[in-house]
Amino acid sequence: MGGDFGPHCIVPACIAFLAGNPFLQLVLVGQASLLEDLCARVPAVDRPRLHIQHASEVIGMDERPSQALRGKPDSSMRVALELVRDGAAHACVSAGNTGALMALSRYLLKTLPGIDRPAMVTAVPTQTGHCHLLDLGANVDCSAEHLYQFAVMGAVAAEALGKARPRVALLNVGTEEIKGNQQVKLASNLLEQAKGINYIGYIEGDGLYRGLADVVVCDGFVGNILLKASEGLAAMVVSRLEELFASSLSAKAIGLVAMPLLRRLRGDLTPARHNGASFLGLQGIVVKSHGSAGEEGIQSALRRALVEVRENLPQRLHGRLETLL
Amino acid sequence: MGGDFGPHCIVPACIAFLAGNPFLQLVLVGQASLLEDLCARVPAVDRPRLHIQHASEVIGMDERPSQALRGKPDSSMRVALELVRDGAAHACVSAGNTGALMALSRYLLKTLPGIDRPAMVTAVPTQTGHCHLLDLGANVDCSAEHLYQFAVMGAVAAEALGKARPRVALLNVGTEEIKGNQQVKLASNLLEQAKGINYIGYIEGDGLYRGLADVVVCDGFVGNILLKASEGLAAMVVSRLEELFASSLSAKAIGLVAMPLLRRLRGDLTPARHNGASFLGLQGIVVKSHGSAGEEGIQSALRRALVEVRENLPQRLHGRLETLL
Repeated sequence: MGGDFGPHCIVPACIAFLAGNPFLQLVLVGQASLLEDLCARVPAVDRPRLHIQHASEVIGMDERPSQALRGKPDSSMRVALELVRDGAAHACVSAGNTGALMALSRYLLKTLPGIDRPAMVTAVPTQTGHCHLLDLGANVDCSAEHLYQFAVMGAVAAEALGKARPRVALLNVGTEEIKGNQQVKLASNLLEQAKGINYIGYIEGDGLYRGLADVVVCDGFVGNILLKASEGLAAMVVSRLEELFASSLSAKAIGLVAMPLLRRLRGDLTPARHNGASFLGLQGIVVKSHGSAGEEGIQSALRRALVEVRENLPQRLHGRLETLL
Repeated sequence: MGGDFGPHCIVPACIAFLAGNPFLQLVLVGQASLLEDLCARVPAVDRPRLHIQHASEVIGMDERPSQALRGKPDSSMRVALELVRDGAAHACVSAGNTGALMALSRYLLKTLPGIDRPAMVTAVPTQTGHCHLLDLGANVDCSAEHLYQFAVMGAVAAEALGKARPRVALLNVGTEEIKGNQQVKLASNLLEQAKGINYIGYIEGDGLYRGLADVVVCDGFVGNILLKASEGLAAMVVSRLEELFASSLSAKAIGLVAMPLLRRLRGDLTPARHNGASFLGLQGIVVKSHGSAGEEGIQSALRRALVEVRENLPQRLHGRLETLL
């Protein structure tokens, strides 16, 4: 029921994703009559794999997490997470209120042993491929221990997603030992002693985009601002190029050819909008689709959830955490 | 003597800048024999306005600020700042070690009354023009009072540079009142009560690039990472576009026309490299040119220093601080 476009965008995305993944079953959670209407066009062959679970309440995009936690026992978000908790679903995907989703996820699914706080992670494009950036905003204040836990979780997730011996780095204002705040310096000490983590030290903001690491760790305040600033900058670059290309006749001709390339680039550069962000450190799989995600973005989030289910990510994390924390 | 290219880049930039500013006098501080050689080609008409001040030592780009402070009494950086302290120069421009420049500036010039710590500021391009972003790395840990002081300094600097009633915002992970860490929330309270500051509340990373504020305030950890990440992202976008344009024959033809536009864009998008960053809150004018700045970047830093001298920025700041702090 969440996101800027609600079920009118989410349901068609689900129907298309279902058709492309013949072994998948989807449970749509929300106001049943509305969802039934939106499912009317599902091909008969796929209909048995599409289930509807009624939930009478909806959490607003601006509601406080505390309200969502206490005030709405039958919200679509809560009911979906309860399905995961009870083993009736393997993963939950939501485009709704991020803070509420995090609070409900922690409350209903609990964190893995050794993890104080779950983190949000997404894949950010770089010069050489992509890197996994975390935390993206779930935790505005972080201790060295939290940063260390994020690094371990990021490394295990990157491995599960196919990267052997991922290079793990801490985001900092310089690469020399003396740089940074106390939390970052202490986290670096912890990571240097961690066996089985390919810790490569500090990375700066430009190093991230130059592809110098596979996992980049920071607190949620920095990560959130960095990710949103990157989105804003990418949008600005594309619109400036559009202006440049519109400014003369020869440039206009160029623009006609270049514009589709630019749009694709903008898509690549707004990872949270297009890929979804995963919550790591929970005893269950939760993927947050960007509130403004369109059908393509919702499908990306579903795809991410599917990979995490196949790789059994929480279980893998649990195993590694036992040896590392 | 500083910067990645040293006096072989800085001196030609100074000679060109001198020729373009007929009332300016420049003092080059460093190893006199080398500087004399590099000045051999100055037009005779400009030579009387170009002075050389010998300094026997050079602070390395990787030296610790504490070493620079204690170990080298005759470094070019220190001698240049002493000229400002003693009234023999109106401003100091350096492309050297940022931490050393900040430490020496604080020690030799002192901060203005009411300012605990100087901040670094630069103009960042936005959808609608540019905004002044501070702090850029001088202070990795900041209290609410520090953020408040940065906001006041940023507002006064933006006014001096021609922006009437600049909109001042605090960088945060959301725009709602409940968002953010303790320092940011407390700084917001302080700014809401400040008379004469056009405080517009929180801004997110994308809002910065959408041009929603004229002055954006954050701690030096966040500001440094944001600025460097933006540089890295801009470089990545330009190189991806170059790849796209190189990938087919028709695109190659486009690329020939588009490439100069892209290069200009990359210049616009790397403000610190091209504009220099100003230290605010000192009893004197200090502008830091990016270590990797070329001749154009050095000239931009000189231009910035000249504007601050003309506007008598430290004096203006002092007047406003007396009424605001």
